Amino acid sequence: MFAAMNNIEDLHQRPIVSVDLAIFALTPDGLEVLLARRGVEPFTGHWALPGGWIHVDEDESLEAAARRVLSDKTGVAAPYFEQVGVFGDAARDPRGWSLSVTYMALIMPDAVILQHGGNVTDAAWHPIAGEATAQPLAFDHAAILKTAITRLRNKVEYTTLPVHLLPEAFTLSELQAVYERLLGRLLDKSAFRKRIAEVDFIVPIVGEMRRASNRPAQLYRLKQARSTVFFDRTI
Amino acid sequence: MFAAMNNIEDLHQRPIVSVDLAIFALTPDGLEVLLARRGVEPFTGHWALPGGWIHVDEDESLEAAARRVLSDKTGVAAPYFEQVGVFGDAARDPRGWSLSVTYMALIMPDAVILQHGGNVTDAAWHPIAGEATAQPLAFDHAAILKTAITRLRNKVEYTTLPVHLLPEAFTLSELQAVYERLLGRLLDKSAFRKRIAEVDFIVPIVGEMRRASNRPAQLYRLKQARSTVFFDRTI
Repeated sequence: MFAAMNNIEDLHQRPIVSVDLAIFALTPDGLEVLLARRGVEPFTGHWALPGGWIHVDEDESLEAAARRVLSDKTGVAAPYFEQVGVFGDAARDPRGWSLSVTYMALIMPDAVILQHGGNVTDAAWHPIAGEATAQPLAFDHAAILKTAITRLRNKVEYTTLPVHLLPEAFTLSELQAVYERLLGRLLDKSAFRKRIAEVDFIVPIVGEMRRASNRPAQLYRLKQARSTVFFDRTI
Repeated sequence: MFAAMNNIEDLHQRPIVSVDLAIFALTPDGLEVLLARRGVEPFTGHWALPGGWIHVDEDESLEAAARRVLSDKTGVAAPYFEQVGVFGDAARDPRGWSLSVTYMALIMPDAVILQHGGNVTDAAWHPIAGEATAQPLAFDHAAILKTAITRLRNKVEYTTLPVHLLPEAFTLSELQAVYERLLGRLLDKSAFRKRIAEVDFIVPIVGEMRRASNRPAQLYRLKQARSTVFFDRTI
């Protein structure tokens, strides 16, 4: 009934473990994900989620490894960062039984300087259509990306997550536009403003207006910097 | 900027990976978690979340490993089973850099025959008070258990998850009692019944009543067996 409990002594019984990142940004073209083109086997020439190994010998934590990969590829820290899940089996990597710990990051694309090097020959933003990119991805990254996109959209429905994609001061129209572009559907303006007022997570910045083409619009900021508030119903 | 990408060739760079389970059940005493007492180092004599290694040489998937541990310890399959997260760093296990992939299971305690053997000297249900058990736990299992309890309670607020702890046919009072015992607070009866009607996930079983002390109560079943429906607001 009980399997041998001591196979960690056999190093060949240890899985390959990577951290992989679904790094999302809203660009003028919509929701995009950062992909890296592999320069080495397996899957040479394929696009993949950016990833790396854990620096076990440096006592690096799992999340530190993921944040290091993000910083290496983009030069920025993410205002929003969370673990999406773990994907592990014998088939996903031809090198052996492997496990991907996947994180999701939301970043503002303006500040990003895409980096590549080492075993990566290119890095680029790729548009998301539905729950996928146009290119086939290496390993099981298409399935992992689909999980991350679903998680992102679910969170957008129920939380203030989209504010992480706005500058510190923003108008209500800008806030609504971010929700709409992330969800891929239009929202009713008056219903949206009613929900935002109910949730009570932003405050007007006294005396700060943005000049638009017709009339000035009030600027708002978060009540609590960079926190994510859960709604009690969908947006 | 880029670390060496090939350290999977060095087996000593591979982390120790375990699957661990927070197995919850509602007993007459409330919400309880199944713990196993360790018979080996490290943490000999301490209670811990049940866990095991992945059978990498048998091409076992991550989820299959977690389900095997559940079956080994309880003799049952779980009607509700999900990944809680991954916990990894250099400090959590004195044997080396290690990673726990943690799953959460909800089971009905009636059918369970607790098993122990191998490196475990005892297995027992332990009551949960707040977000912890009375005993100190091995490794970082107290922190992992806290995360699992928070996840469970959040899901109870927003989903039909508690039906997994009921028999196939149940009354509305029984349904409400399960929500209340999982949340640790009482719910208003008419508001609860209004929400349940709105979500529309159960149907009356025609002609089936349960005889209570005063008057018969209608029995219900799920519209879709063992599915979990998300609400658009809290219960």
